[in-house]
Amino acid sequence: MVNALERLVDCFSRLPTIGRKSAWRLALHLMERPEEEVAELALAIGTIKKLVHLCPECFSYTEGERCDICVDGRRDRSVVCVVEKPTDVFTIERAGRYRGVYHVLGGVLSPIDGVTPDRLRIEELGQRLDKGEIRELILGLGGSADAETTELYLARVFGPRQLRITRFARGLPAGTELDYIDQLTLTQALQERIEVRTGRDEGAH
Amino acid sequence: MVNALERLVDCFSRLPTIGRKSAWRLALHLMERPEEEVAELALAIGTIKKLVHLCPECFSYTEGERCDICVDGRRDRSVVCVVEKPTDVFTIERAGRYRGVYHVLGGVLSPIDGVTPDRLRIEELGQRLDKGEIRELILGLGGSADAETTELYLARVFGPRQLRITRFARGLPAGTELDYIDQLTLTQALQERIEVRTGRDEGAH
Repeated sequence: MVNALERLVDCFSRLPTIGRKSAWRLALHLMERPEEEVAELALAIGTIKKLVHLCPECFSYTEGERCDICVDGRRDRSVVCVVEKPTDVFTIERAGRYRGVYHVLGGVLSPIDGVTPDRLRIEELGQRLDKGEIRELILGLGGSADAETTELYLARVFGPRQLRITRFARGLPAGTELDYIDQLTLTQALQERIEVRTGRDEGAH
Repeated sequence: MVNALERLVDCFSRLPTIGRKSAWRLALHLMERPEEEVAELALAIGTIKKLVHLCPECFSYTEGERCDICVDGRRDRSVVCVVEKPTDVFTIERAGRYRGVYHVLGGVLSPIDGVTPDRLRIEELGQRLDKGEIRELILGLGGSADAETTELYLARVFGPRQLRITRFARGLPAGTELDYIDQLTLTQALQERIEVRTGRDEGAH
């Protein structure tokens, strides 16, 4: 009925997790907001692809030539955490404890979906390793079957190099009761169990 | 870390039902979409407040001077459905059976929230009634307590006029089992029960 509104609703509906009903709600919400606020949203969306691009070194998002992490002299450039997508970098950074750098693969291997090794940034990772600065690769691709396959693949490809290759520990998420843990996680938590050091043990080491 | 992305996430987070996590998801989704699609969304948002305004007659949204319904000669201008907000017009139009016109009040009475009669378009409704063309007001404000209060208020204000005042029937929603109906709805459905005409009855009328 009102073309501009329906066009906006169509655009909103195309976004993930936003159905037609939510799209209408968002559109009508904007109609009730001040002009400046709506203009700010439009500008933020309209400029995002021009302002943000992939860091040529780690392939995370950046506004500058290289990303904040790659140019940060305080980061340990000898440790590289390999992740699937740029969001993963933000997720790990929010935890605030990792001091190395990153390499965004751009996906995980999935032959069914046509994601073969040449579709991921594995060659680029090899080129970074060639420079000889990197001592450890931390494989942080997640717990899915495809992610594990990809980690095994990377371990096989880069295994022959003079390099420590690790992956994230599998186990119980913090603050969860055993009742809510699936069996695979529980099995992995058991297999990867670590020694509890008591005061006496520590004295002995 | 990436200012443009964080700015976009901030903007998305301000929208209703979109939390910070969804906002990140939307922002990163846009990064992966073609430039044209993102530009289209930005344009649709950026122009919405300029293109769409309130119809000066019924106060629904319109791009033209008056809205499609008010200018449509086939609509029955003697029947006016009073609704709370512009979305309600779209909702009733989607059902496709109503042939009258509308009046958007702009809210319902709610003294606690400072919504007094002068904050609603009640005076404007009076001016429309003054023209003498309107025979029936259908109060379609919904089933909330504030909506019912507003309907009673309107019935009292416009009651003295030569006018039929009706409201939407209360009762069972289509396709629902009794198990899922709340007691108030059930009570109303019982109070507002209507005669079932059998073939024999109809013959008698």
